Amino acid sequence: MSSPRIDVTYRLHVAAGQAAHRARLLAVEQSIEMPPEAVGEARLLDEVLARVERVEPQADGTTLARLQLACETVCEDAGQLMNMLFGNCSLQPDVELVDIDVPDSLASAFGGPALGIDGLRRLTGVTARPLTCTALKPLGSTAQQLAGLCRTFAEAGIDIIKDDHGWANQSGSPFTERIAACQGQVQQVNEKSGRRSLYAPSLYGTQLQMQRQIGEARSLGIQALLIAPMVCGVATFNALRREHPDLAFIAHPALGGGRIAPPALLGRLFRLFGADAVIFPNHGGRFTYSTATCHDIVRCQRATWHGLRPTMPVPAGGMSVERVPELKREYGADSMLLIGGSLLVAGERLGERSRAFVEAVAADEEAA
Amino acid sequence: MSSPRIDVTYRLHVAAGQAAHRARLLAVEQSIEMPPEAVGEARLLDEVLARVERVEPQADGTTLARLQLACETVCEDAGQLMNMLFGNCSLQPDVELVDIDVPDSLASAFGGPALGIDGLRRLTGVTARPLTCTALKPLGSTAQQLAGLCRTFAEAGIDIIKDDHGWANQSGSPFTERIAACQGQVQQVNEKSGRRSLYAPSLYGTQLQMQRQIGEARSLGIQALLIAPMVCGVATFNALRREHPDLAFIAHPALGGGRIAPPALLGRLFRLFGADAVIFPNHGGRFTYSTATCHDIVRCQRATWHGLRPTMPVPAGGMSVERVPELKREYGADSMLLIGGSLLVAGERLGERSRAFVEAVAADEEAA
Repeated sequence: MSSPRIDVTYRLHVAAGQAAHRARLLAVEQSIEMPPEAVGEARLLDEVLARVERVEPQADGTTLARLQLACETVCEDAGQLMNMLFGNCSLQPDVELVDIDVPDSLASAFGGPALGIDGLRRLTGVTARPLTCTALKPLGSTAQQLAGLCRTFAEAGIDIIKDDHGWANQSGSPFTERIAACQGQVQQVNEKSGRRSLYAPSLYGTQLQMQRQIGEARSLGIQALLIAPMVCGVATFNALRREHPDLAFIAHPALGGGRIAPPALLGRLFRLFGADAVIFPNHGGRFTYSTATCHDIVRCQRATWHGLRPTMPVPAGGMSVERVPELKREYGADSMLLIGGSLLVAGERLGERSRAFVEAVAADEEAA
Repeated sequence: MSSPRIDVTYRLHVAAGQAAHRARLLAVEQSIEMPPEAVGEARLLDEVLARVERVEPQADGTTLARLQLACETVCEDAGQLMNMLFGNCSLQPDVELVDIDVPDSLASAFGGPALGIDGLRRLTGVTARPLTCTALKPLGSTAQQLAGLCRTFAEAGIDIIKDDHGWANQSGSPFTERIAACQGQVQQVNEKSGRRSLYAPSLYGTQLQMQRQIGEARSLGIQALLIAPMVCGVATFNALRREHPDLAFIAHPALGGGRIAPPALLGRLFRLFGADAVIFPNHGGRFTYSTATCHDIVRCQRATWHGLRPTMPVPAGGMSVERVPELKREYGADSMLLIGGSLLVAGERLGERSRAFVEAVAADEEAA
């Protein structure tokens, strides 16, 4: 085999006796997409047809099929990687995408995080503890109301104050007005406090729209952005990431459910395409990911992998100040703890509750 | 309620006694994303919080929950519509998106197909019968090999010859070289035959890349394009569609599996965002969609809906010449029949097999 290959593990939900056959059909579906016996050219069968490396029956009755895809079919395009990994077989309910590995050449082409964990620490000036993060809610608020929240959160010392992922260009709080108001408040507080809280606006629309949004954000001194790669398309995400290596990209998992295992999507792929931090639905909140799934996501985000910078894990989705000690033990210092709605429930005591969050994260482990 | 609303039906996989509660949580998740009791402002609870309209237990033990989302949260952005419909709850395995309706204002903002079924008939000159379509395979072929296939298919009289959805900018068949070679052959044949076969190249990458690809395609006289909205992002798709109202956009379902019901995604949403034709995995082929699901997709594509042009259904995924009479009876004249790999299996008899396809489609119903 002349060219490097992409390793993919799929879980097949078929009878054990059918698994080897199903794996071969899958290899065809995700590469040449026509009967191999009708392909005349040996090179295509040797080099382009996906190869079934192993078929391993599992105790739960499913089968893991390890395939190798030809890099030449992906041609260093992020959308095309998704297409070859899971384009057609996403429509086949007996297939899940479980894991993926790429050759060094492809890792280096996509580039991974430009900042990663260390870069986020440099931007925020936070060393040796988890970062704190919160979200601006609810939709329907005015830019001024959100800016007021920004002031409170920044005064409490929260490191990253991000738009809720539902913010786009709503008429009650248009992007331009919102980011100016929010960043203005955060900057004012930073100047007084000497801290470096970051406001991260949510990008929406197409690549061109996002380029304009990033331009506006830059002109205000904004250094972090929220983006949902599965909504805008991973090619758009990867292109923006590479155009703006000095900005922090926080990836949101919206629309990321389905049959790509969360560690493969939110761990490996989002990291590969350049997420400096990735939000994931932590166990024990409003979502149902298991503890093991969450730990697998985090392992994929932080493990040594083709020289790519590690991505900062952001457990989220119904977290609370009370869970901070547990979250710190579980995810360690190289993580960002996101508490959103549960702070806002404090109403008039929002500042106090936000400070309690910050203090709980800053408290040393012994005291926690 | 002051502003128009988006009607969404979700299927909840929860115990019947929990369904009403789960529907309320879902309404929160897909709108304000914080506890309603912590929202001070009445307007937000009245107008922005999604509303649970009905909760209907089903015979199969699931529950249909009908919700209304506020248009103001979507702000006429296609990606943001996906985000509000299914962003976070895509991560909650007990929820499926079953159906969606939008107000006239939103339908008109996204615009739907610019050409639709009538426009595709005008471009191809085909009246009163289904269109024929095939795909250029396999990946790994050279541009010259694909151009040779184009000649054979065009000589046989196939109406639309599209790139396989796996074509991007592979080094063995770069986009620029491929589309020039393929379009060149199709044009040559058209000039001789007097027919109007269309070559439809596959778009890849980001909005900017796709704009360049469309520019190249236009300069060659290409009038149809293949695009995978779930790979590139629906906002990109809708933006390109609106920029190029004279070109036919054929949407591919790649990466469209998951928990959005196929009629909602491939029927309503792809039509709403502007697909002139939508390929779907027909029953009885390599995919497992049921007959009822396929008929629901087609109904959503062609039914009267907010004045949007109907989208042409393209049943595909393992079809054969032998099934043409059945497909014609099933989907009627306003459809496009796509046969890919099963033609190529004919090898040296590809021309003959392609003509048999064209003749089977042209045959009048009595004879079929």
